[in-house]
Parts: sequence; C-alpha cells; structure tokens
Amino acid sequence: MTRSHSIAVLPGDGIGPEVVSCALEVLDAAEQRFGFATERSEFSAGAGHYLATGELFDAVEPRLRDRDAILFGSMGDPRVTPGVLERGFILEMRQRFQQAANVRPVRLYPGVPSPIAGLTPERCEMVIVRENTEGAYVGRGSTVHAGTPNAVAMQESLNTRAGIERVVDFSFRLALGRRRRLTLCHKTNILVAAGQLWQQVVAEVGERYPEVEVDYVHVDAMCFHLPLAPERFDVVVTDNLFGDIITDLGAVIQGGLGVATSANLNLDGSAPSMFEAIHGSAPDIAGTGRANPAGAILSLALMLGHLGEGDAARAVEAATVEVLGGLPALSGAEMGLSTPQIGTRIAQIVRDGRA
Amino acid sequence: MTRSHSIAVLPGDGIGPEVVSCALEVLDAAEQRFGFATERSEFSAGAGHYLATGELFDAVEPRLRDRDAILFGSMGDPRVTPGVLERGFILEMRQRFQQAANVRPVRLYPGVPSPIAGLTPERCEMVIVRENTEGAYVGRGSTVHAGTPNAVAMQESLNTRAGIERVVDFSFRLALGRRRRLTLCHKTNILVAAGQLWQQVVAEVGERYPEVEVDYVHVDAMCFHLPLAPERFDVVVTDNLFGDIITDLGAVIQGGLGVATSANLNLDGSAPSMFEAIHGSAPDIAGTGRANPAGAILSLALMLGHLGEGDAARAVEAATVEVLGGLPALSGAEMGLSTPQIGTRIAQIVRDGRA
Ligand SMILES: CC(C)[C@H](C(=O)O)[C@@H](O)C(=O)O
Ligand SMILES: CC(C)[C@H](C(=O)O)[C@@H](O)C(=O)O
Repeated sequence: MTRSHSIAVLPGDGIGPEVVSCALEVLDAAEQRFGFATERSEFSAGAGHYLATGELFDAVEPRLRDRDAILFGSMGDPRVTPGVLERGFILEMRQRFQQAANVRPVRLYPGVPSPIAGLTPERCEMVIVRENTEGAYVGRGSTVHAGTPNAVAMQESLNTRAGIERVVDFSFRLALGRRRRLTLCHKTNILVAAGQLWQQVVAEVGERYPEVEVDYVHVDAMCFHLPLAPERFDVVVTDNLFGDIITDLGAVIQGGLGVATSANLNLDGSAPSMFEAIHGSAPDIAGTGRANPAGAILSLALMLGHLGEGDAARAVEAATVEVLGGLPALSGAEMGLSTPQIGTRIAQIVRDGRA
Repeated sequence: MTRSHSIAVLPGDGIGPEVVSCALEVLDAAEQRFGFATERSEFSAGAGHYLATGELFDAVEPRLRDRDAILFGSMGDPRVTPGVLERGFILEMRQRFQQAANVRPVRLYPGVPSPIAGLTPERCEMVIVRENTEGAYVGRGSTVHAGTPNAVAMQESLNTRAGIERVVDFSFRLALGRRRRLTLCHKTNILVAAGQLWQQVVAEVGERYPEVEVDYVHVDAMCFHLPLAPERFDVVVTDNLFGDIITDLGAVIQGGLGVATSANLNLDGSAPSMFEAIHGSAPDIAGTGRANPAGAILSLALMLGHLGEGDAARAVEAATVEVLGGLPALSGAEMGLSTPQIGTRIAQIVRDGRA
C-alpha cells in the first residue's frame, strides 16, 4: 500500500499562489520518484479572502485540524490594516495548533552569494529554534490615560516553564543529531525574570543531554556573532520576539528571503505543523514571474522530512540548491528564469533522480 | 577668557583605561589647537572598583552630577555576576541622569572595510536614536511558582508618552539638520499597546516638523534593510530594547566595535551626558596594546560637539577617520600599530591642523 499524507495547501496572497504552485509541481515529482502519495486540499485564506469574506483563521481551523501538515504560501495586502492578518490568522494558528517551535535553518548553500563578505557555506550551517506561542507575542498590553500627555502603555511578556521546556527539549534533541552544540540567546542581564527562567530550564533540561555543549549569547551580541562568526552556532534557541528578529538576520546572511524557510512545529501531535517560506506576499511583483520559488520549495522539503519522507526531503533540497547555485541572481528579472521555469527545472531534477 | 569645560573621566576596566588615555591625549591636542580648556577629574569605577569596594553608581553620582560631560571607557569583568554592573551602574546612570537619548551614529568611514559586500560610505550615513530610560529596561518582572513545573515569568515593558515624546522630538530636530527623514522602528503589529503609543507620538510630534519625511519599519525587517539598504535611513528612532539590538547591527555594518561610538544624552540640562565607545572591556586583550582606541576617540568627538566645540569635534573625527583608513586591520596585532601609537598619531594630526 502506498504511503499517503493528507496536506492542506494555503497559497494565500500575492506571490504566494505562484510559488506554492511550483512547490506542488516539485511535490508531484517527489511522489513519482519516491512512491508516496498526498491527498491535497486547497483553502482560500489571507488578505484577499479576508477582504471578500471577513474570515480569518477561525473559519478554516476545523478543516485544517486533522491534516498531516499545512503548506503555506504568504499573506498580506496593503488594503488590510496592519496586524489584522498577523494576529487573526498567523498567531492564531500558532496558538490554536500549539505550533510551539518555529524552526528556521540558516544555511548558506553553495553557489548562493551571501551579503557577508567572505562567508563560506562550511561556516554557516545552523538551525534557529524560536519559541512560537508566548513571550511578548501573547498580546497582553494596555494603556492608561490614552490620548493624554500622561499616557502610559504597558506591554507584557509571559513566559511559562512548560512553554520554554518543550522548545528547549526539542532543541537539545535537534542538537544531538547535529554538531551537539546548543546556544541560548536572550538578554538575561536586563530581562531578569524571564531570563532566569530560560536559563534554569536550559540548565535542567541540559542534564538529560550531557553530550550537548551549552552556550549563551545576549541578543545584542548575536547581531555581531551571527554575521561575523556563524560557525559558532549549531542550534540556537531563543524566545518569540528575539527569534523574530534574529531569524531575519539569519535569512540575510544565507542570501536573503528567496532561500529562507521555516517550520512551525506542533511538538505533541495534537494538531498539524505548518511550513512556509519566510518572504511576504510581495504584491509589487505578483504576477510578473519574478518571484523566486526556492523558499517555498525548501519549505516543502522541510515538510517532507517532517512527514517521514526523508529521502524525498533530501532530494528536493538538493535539487533546489543545484538550481539556486546556477541562477545569476536570487530575485527579480535578473534571475534569468521565471518563477514557473525555476519550479519546473527543480521538479525535473527531482523526477530524473539527478539529486 | 578661555572657554573651559568640566569633565568627569571614568576609564573603567580592561582596555577602558588604555583607550581613554588615547582619547585624553587627543583632547590635549584639540585644546591646544582650538583654544579651549577642560578641567578633568578621573574617577575609579567599574568591575575592579566594585570588587574592591562594593561601590556602584550611587557612590560616585554626587561627584558626577555637576560636570559638563562624562567620558566613559568600558566596564566588565568575568568575576562580577552578569547584570550587577549593567543594572547597578550603567542603567542607574541613564536613569538618574535622565540620559533620555542613546545616540549612535552609523557611518561607514572611507577606508574602513564593512563586512557587508559592496557597501560604500555614501550609502551608510545614519544616526540611530534609542530611547534610553524605559521600555523593557525598567526592570519590572516577576515570577510565580518559581522552581516548579508551573513557573511563570512575566516581564514588563513600560512606555510613557513623556519618555517617548522627548526622544522623538530630539530625533526630529536631528533629522532637520540632516537629510530630513525619520524612521520609526518598532513591532507595532505585535506589541500593539506600546506600538500605538509610539506611532501616535511620532505622528503628533511630526506635525511640528512638516519638512521631515516619516517612515516606519518593523524591527525584524530592519535586519534586512539595515545591512542591505542602509541608504534608506537618515535618523532612526526606536525603543530601548530594539535600539539595543539594532545599534549593534549598525556597528557591524560600519566595520565593527572598533569604530562604533555612542552618546547617552540628557536632553533637559538637568545632569551630564555620557560618551562612550560601544565595545566592552575586552579583558582578553587588556594590556597588550591591541585595542583600537578609535571608538573612544570618536566618542570624544561626540562629546566635543555636545560641549559646543564643533570645530574641535570635526577635527578629531577627521583625524581619526584618516588614521583608521590607513590601518591594515581594525583590531588586534594586525592593526600594525599599538593602541598608544594610534592615539599619538591621531593627536598629532589634530595638533598640526592637518585635519
Ligand atoms: C507576520 C508576523 C506576525 C510574523 C511574526 O512576527 O512572527 C513574521 O514576522 C514571522 O517572523 O513569521
Ligand atoms: C551593558 C548593557 C546594559 C547595555 C544595554 O543593554 O543597554 C549595552 O548592551 C549597551 O547597548 O549599551
């Protein structure tokens, strides 16, 4: 009997549908070659859907919950008030599906130019794990005397032992299968209460993983080390807000949004995990064929790995890296190939078994 | 009558005394050439002083308060518990002296190599203004059920209209004398209460400065734009925590800690402002003559500008840039010159009027 995985596809807005359609073409090729199947359902979601229907995550949640994974394009449109989709869809999904770990590989692929002078692929091979459900993202804030000269706004960061522990434990396990080094990134000298809890949990969980070396770097110092000494890092674990910031820095280092990808992992099997490229909906180039689908296709590779299709995951990644390395530029008209041409080329390599 | 300024000098720990002594040699030269005087008092402070006496900022505060400015080296020693000096001295000074604006120029000087491939000096000329007294730095946090599986740590960010307004108004004034562009950096889509207050204040204060164009960038996106499109920025204003992070990224872009400098400005004349290089005390190279004093000397230039000695400020900066541009490397033995040699060379250029 053929292995089959049930997948929800959310192409979203702007370039989302274009790059997701490339990823699905590559998925077809991977299924043929590696002998598995997917049952796919596509859902309309995002800014366009919200403007037309007023629907956010709530509306689609029941139909996503029993899927094995979610493949996500991108969301956003200047006509939607900033924050509405972020909070009403993206954060809501992370919460409701308990996608506790936001996992972002930061790898400089061979042939992909880094903006960091002299950086080589051997020196840049890490995974940043971002706590994805709490911290400053809990949406707790309030203002007194709003609109007066005495206004005071308070914004809270909530950190639970359980929330930290699950993502720290996951990070240690990840490090075990890699170079066995875990770095906590925080700002413990200033955010003392939250910082102490993070440090305690890392120390305690670390006792279960004596093979893994533990390191600590302040978030401000991370801005130095990440671009200038990325070889220091194997697995980096950090809180929600710091993770939001340093993973974008990681994406810069590895050559930009075109190649950066992320997994929003549910760690207890209670709901599906979600896989997406890091780039936004880029409405300015939507429909022009100038979007690089590599991020979306690499997020497909992450999804395949998560579904247990390790061979397919490796083949998709290798094919993407091969094509990426041959592009004269990573985005825009200078890529030399259009969005669908890149997708088709990667799919061919996967299908032909050349990767 | 000669103009005279009363200055407190706090060399601090590690390489602090070495680089500050260079700055004072350059100050001598500037006084000779530009015909002003300084009355200097040196104070022992920092990790060494704390270990010997237990004294932190409190002890020295009364003797600093009536000075015109403070020239600061660097603080830190692995033997002091992390956080003690930061909170007991640095943050305490910022609070007690109401140093509301932490001002960090991000300039790529000619001849200084940036780690960002292809970046040129014309594209990198901005000032980041960081709110320096509130936000997540207020030290409000608490933990319930500490040490149990149910522990929850809360960390608060406090933002007042008055605190934001003074630093925003300062930033607009700064922009007026520059390229007239102000960028607010925040994370308004997630930190809604604090974000709205920041946005409101920028909008309202902005009405007083119609010549200044206002822009907004999320802190995560800043990690992209700062290294890849620094020409977008003239004056950037941001909160305490985001400022801590993005100014270190700024320092990377401009060539590293050796050349980065900052002013902690009191904006109402109630207490002195403080000027320091961004680098730490670097105990590993202390005493070896391998520290680059450029950061400290550039912070002297900022101090001179603040004291109204604009010609001296420009001469010190120009001389430093000239010497920096001629160094084969920005730090370590590869600089080719020792710490005092660099200081003497810069002082000579200032004295001779060649800059
Ligand atoms: C869209 C936004 C809510 C989101 C975040 O801040 O987490 C994004 O920046 C990300 O990193 O996935
Ligand atoms: C030393 C530390 C308290 C300080 C900060 O976090 O503000 C430093 O990183 C800085 O940027 O001046």
